[in-house]
Parts: sequence; C-alpha cells; structure tokens
Amino acid sequence: MKIDSARFLADLHELRSFGASGVGKGVMRPAFSEADIAARRWLAGRMEEAGLRVAMDAMGNLFGLAEAPSLLLGSHADSQPEGGWLDGALGVVAALEVARASREAGGPAVSVVAFQDEEGRFGITTGSDVWSGNLTQKAVDPLRDHAGVSLEEARRGLADMVTGPVALAQFSGYIELHIEQGPSLDAAGEQIGVVSDIVGIRDMQITFGGQQNHAGTTPMALRRDAFQGVAAFTTQLEDALRNIVTPQSVWTIGHLELHPNATSIVPGKARLTLQWRDGDTERLARMEAEIRQTAQAVAQERGLTLTFGEMRGLEPVAMDRRLREALEMAAEDVAPGKWRLMSSGALHDATNVARQLPVAMLFVPSINGISHDFAEDTDEADLVAGVEVLARAVTTLGA
Amino acid sequence: MKIDSARFLADLHELRSFGASGVGKGVMRPAFSEADIAARRWLAGRMEEAGLRVAMDAMGNLFGLAEAPSLLLGSHADSQPEGGWLDGALGVVAALEVARASREAGGPAVSVVAFQDEEGRFGITTGSDVWSGNLTQKAVDPLRDHAGVSLEEARRGLADMVTGPVALAQFSGYIELHIEQGPSLDAAGEQIGVVSDIVGIRDMQITFGGQQNHAGTTPMALRRDAFQGVAAFTTQLEDALRNIVTPQSVWTIGHLELHPNATSIVPGKARLTLQWRDGDTERLARMEAEIRQTAQAVAQERGLTLTFGEMRGLEPVAMDRRLREALEMAAEDVAPGKWRLMSSGALHDATNVARQLPVAMLFVPSINGISHDFAEDTDEADLVAGVEVLARAVTTLGA
Repeated sequence: MKIDSARFLADLHELRSFGASGVGKGVMRPAFSEADIAARRWLAGRMEEAGLRVAMDAMGNLFGLAEAPSLLLGSHADSQPEGGWLDGALGVVAALEVARASREAGGPAVSVVAFQDEEGRFGITTGSDVWSGNLTQKAVDPLRDHAGVSLEEARRGLADMVTGPVALAQFSGYIELHIEQGPSLDAAGEQIGVVSDIVGIRDMQITFGGQQNHAGTTPMALRRDAFQGVAAFTTQLEDALRNIVTPQSVWTIGHLELHPNATSIVPGKARLTLQWRDGDTERLARMEAEIRQTAQAVAQERGLTLTFGEMRGLEPVAMDRRLREALEMAAEDVAPGKWRLMSSGALHDATNVARQLPVAMLFVPSINGISHDFAEDTDEADLVAGVEVLARAVTTLGA
Repeated sequence: MKIDSARFLADLHELRSFGASGVGKGVMRPAFSEADIAARRWLAGRMEEAGLRVAMDAMGNLFGLAEAPSLLLGSHADSQPEGGWLDGALGVVAALEVARASREAGGPAVSVVAFQDEEGRFGITTGSDVWSGNLTQKAVDPLRDHAGVSLEEARRGLADMVTGPVALAQFSGYIELHIEQGPSLDAAGEQIGVVSDIVGIRDMQITFGGQQNHAGTTPMALRRDAFQGVAAFTTQLEDALRNIVTPQSVWTIGHLELHPNATSIVPGKARLTLQWRDGDTERLARMEAEIRQTAQAVAQERGLTLTFGEMRGLEPVAMDRRLREALEMAAEDVAPGKWRLMSSGALHDATNVARQLPVAMLFVPSINGISHDFAEDTDEADLVAGVEVLARAVTTLGA
C-alpha cells in the first residue's frame, strides 16, 4: 500500500483545529466537550469517505469498520484540558490513513477506532476500559468531572451518533501508534520505538502522623514533625530503591498535603502519594517491600504514626509477540538503526484492549519529551515514519 | 496587697463565657466578633467597678486607667477562631485583679489593658502594634479577614466605646502574664517562667524549580524533581543547623506547596516557607547563612532553580532588667525552686510595647504544652501563683 503523507498530515492538522488553543499547536479537547463532539462528527465523515462503516457505542467510542475480520488500529481523540495536538490524535489519524491506503491498494482489512475519555475527564482510559469489558457503562455513568457533570449527562451530546455495541470478535488484533511522551527517543536521535511492554503501576497513599505544635514554643527535641518524617523517608527511599531497580524503573512523590500547612505550626500530619512503575511484577513487589520498610523505620525513629492507604495499580502488559515482531521488522525497514525496543512508561488504551485482543504499540519521538502541554510536538518526518511502519506491519500481518 | 483568688478565678471563668465553644473550656472570640464586643463591654464594667477610668482607642484596645503615673498590666482579650480560655484572657483578668487589690490596699497605681486583634484576624498583634506607634490606624484599616471584611468595617461594632488616643507617657512600664503555650514548664513540674527575652523570628519563602514531567515516561536520571530537592534540603538542613544552634533555637517548615501536586506528574515546582527563631540576632543570621548555603548546594547538585523570597521577621526583644528582676524575686518568694528564667518562643503584645516602654513577661505552665486549641488549660493553683507573682512584683516596683 502507498501512504499519502500529505493527506495524512492535512487530516492531522484539521483534527487539531477542533479545540485549537491558539497557543502554538496546543489543543483543548476534553472528552464530550463541544470540540470533542465536533471532532468525532468530522472523523465519522472521514471514515465514511474512506469506505468504512461508522459505528459508535454508548460510551462514545467511534469506530470506522472494515469487513470482518480486520485488524483494529487507533488511539483516542480526546485531549487533556490543556494538551498537545498529537497525544491520541496521531494514532487515530494514522489509523485512518492506513485503512484508507490499504483499501485503495486492495490490502488487508483495517478498522479504525477513536476511543473516548482516555485522558480522564471522568475516569482513566474510560472508553477502552468499558469497551474491553472491564467496567460496565452503568458503573461509569455516575462518575463526575471536576465541575460536577456526570458522564451520563455528558454523553448525551453524542447520543444521536450511537449505533450500539461494537463486537470485539471481529478484530484479529489492535495496534496503537502514539507519541512517546518521554525524552528517550528524542535524546537518542531515534525515530521509532517498538513497545515491549506497558509498565505496571503501583500507587499508594502514605500518611505520617506527628504532633501539631506551635512553631515558636516547641523545642526541637520534643517535636514529632510529620513533614520532617516525610523528608527523611523521601531521601532514604532514594538510596534504598537505587539498589533494586533498573534504569527503566521509576518512582514519584507527586502529591503531598501538609496539615495544617501553616507557616507557624509544626505539621501534625503529612499525606503523600507514592507511585512506582516497572515492567516486572516481581520488581514492583520488591519496590513495595522497600517502601514499607523505609517508611516504618523512619516512623519508628521519629515517634510518628504511619498509615498505608490501599494499594492500587495495574499489572504490566506484555505486547503480543507476533504483532510486535511485525512492527520490529517494519521499523528496521523504515528507520534502519534508528529504532529501539522499549517499555512504555505511560498507560494507554492498549492496556485495556490487551485483556481481550493481541495488542502492540509503537512510538515516535516527543521533542524534548514534552507532552500534556501546548508545546507538545514531533518532527513531521517522524510522524510520517510512524505511519509507514504501521502500514508495513499491516501488510506483513494481513487481516 | 491581698489577691482575692476566688474573685480572680470567677472573673476568668466569666470572661470564658463570652464565645464559649461548648467543647471543654474552649473559646471562639476573634477580634470584633459579637463575643469579643460583648466581652469588652463586660470588662469595661469590671474596670469601672474597680475604680479605673475606662478608655478605648480607635483600634479597640480597652484600658482601665489608674491615676498617672502607673504601671500597665494586661494582655489581649481576643482569641483564635477556635482557641483556649487562657491565651490573652489570663493576662487581662490577672491585671484587673492586681489593679483592684492594689487599689484596695492603697498600693501602687496599676492600669489595665486588653489589647485587640493579637491573634491576627486582620494582622498580627495589630492592636498593640498600632498603640505603640509602629503602624497607623489608617494603614491597618484596609486589612481584610479571610471572609473579606475590612478592619475598618469590623471596628464599627465598638465605635460607641471609643474615647480617643491613650497616651503612652502615663505608664512607667508594661508587664504581661501569659500562658507558656509550650511544654517546658509543665514537663519540668515548674509553676512560673520569668521571660528573659522574646525570640526573634525570621521567615522566608524558598522555591525550588525543576522540570514538570510525566511520572511514567521520564527516566529517573533525566528528572529534575522539585520535591526531591525539597526533601534533600530538609534533611541536609537538619544536620547543618544542629552544629550552630542552642536547645532554644527552633526552625520549622510548616508550609509547602507542590506544583502541580498530582500523583502522576513529577513536581516542577515546590515552594516552602521556612521559619526560624532564636533569642540572639547573631545566631539568627548564622542560621540564615546556613539555610542559603544548604539550599544552593542542593539546587546545584540537582539542576534545580532556586529563589529566595523576601526575608521577613522581628528582632529579638530583651526584657527590661529592673522589671524582670522584680519578677524573679517575686517568683522565688511564691514558688521557691519551681520557676525558671526562659525565652519566649512565641510573639506577644509585649514585643510591640517594648518599642516604647520597659516591658517584662511571666509565664505559667500550659498542660501538655497545648494552646490554640479548645483543650488549652492550666492548673488553677498555677494561675493563682502567676497572679501572686505579678502582685508582689508590682509592690516591689511601685508605680
């Protein structure tokens, strides 16, 4: 098949116009916003023009269906409240171009999906989570966004497009092209990342409790300062984890609340959320053990109470070997010596779809690793390289 | 003179009834609240009954004046939004009792003051700050509380009581009895603290800037995590300061804001407020130098930007030697071997008054060091001991 890179880029820029922020190439197109609804109507038109049958489920996931059986390509079409033009959109428009080109060339049957609410207006990857059967529509309908709007209310804006459930059985596998959203490919001057696995995530609230006191009248020796405990825990953990992780492991304290968070009061409570990610379930568990031990040692040493919240998380997901190898071969053809096999540190719709179908993913570079930001961008040559790899893999795989 | 401890305690409990929280002995009597206004009207009546001339300045500071020259005794009558029954109130009612008893015994002339807004509804120790001439009424009138009410609006509730400015020159000195608001006397089983100095305070915002990143896709080695910087700074500072401080020095990180403070995002910015207190100006400066050096070293090591905010603060205030020695002699008479000379770690109205008059302070214990809390309390025997010390010192000093 022959990719029309001009047509692909023109469509990608046209999708960007729905919710364009007016700042650089930035986009504001959260799930079910006016911009998102308009974008889905436009995408449905493009799918029809490509000879695909348009379908939408109650959740607002938009499909352009080829005759069954087909490969399913795509990603999500919603954006962060203030996001970039490629996060999700790239995979959807690339899928459209490959489906179109394959149809024109009499190639394998390719269907397209634009998942809904990947960016978490209501949940996290909600659209693919419901479609892959992990959650029911009824279970997610009461979810509310920050403004108090429920998912059930929000999805009325797309009600006229809903055709009903879209069966999984018609698809032989799912491939998602996405921007890396990290700095590795860009820093190495590489064009393509073929994903080996999507890392697992663990997420736990940890609360240190001390004694709230007057910051002037309480001698240091008599204090039980919850924040000093957090600081000690954080620095000790940095050392402790370095011994058991790989360069692919990450951990983050992104959220912290002190109580009462007042200049003149010794903090009586400090609650942080610690998140850690790794491709290996065993290592995730070893990291957890180290985290608990370090926190307990600090709490004991400083006379603090310690509470661990519920541990939440997602298991690591290995990519399907057959799909992945087709991507590797195509990457070596399109970008010889300028691609790598790599973990995905971010969560994607592919994580959910993997419960039901063979899945694979490929990445193109994010300039300076920037994403979820108006400044998110990728060289157009790299965008086209990504579509080319996708097209070659489809040709290899057939339907 | 002869203190009437039953009358003193009865008045103290009656003052507690204005704004009583209904939880333990707790009080809710912020400056210019209905409870505060009612309390000032009641206090004015008690002053009159004691033969004092009632006066109030525009700021709402309430005076019961003896013939000039007189010693001025007192504290503040407002409370924290949710405070204790003794913080401020003790010093006012003790002053009333000593003025009354001295008058009855034909002793030295003693005037009484109940300062306004010590607890910071609008400013910090606003009443005594204006009375002592550091700020003008015009300058503080636009200050607003958390609900948006201005001081100018709030003080209308006391307008009918205002008699005009109250001259400083009529007073030979100021003595304030207060609860310790810290654990030292209670822990040592002592009854009286004679204050040697009120510590100086330094207060500085410190902002570490890093790179906001995706918590899944950014390798640890490429991160510039603002919170990891804060944690390293905090632990290194704990070690660094221990070498230059005394057991009376304190430092506190009570306030910290991460940005964007989201579980899945590497913090790009972290702003903390560091406060430190010591009785010695030199040591405060050495602590500042250590703080700046430690922060700079951490920022440099971790590739973070560093911004120091404006340094605010109050200088340490030494107590007047003559007044202090009168309190020491009286303490040894009333509580032989059960008193100490100590720094005040907390700010008091005496800090402001010291700009204009000789001042001294004495403390009684706070049970478990608790203050600014409904649970704040002191043994009645210790409250009475405090009044006795005050009365004896007044006798020694004369007017």
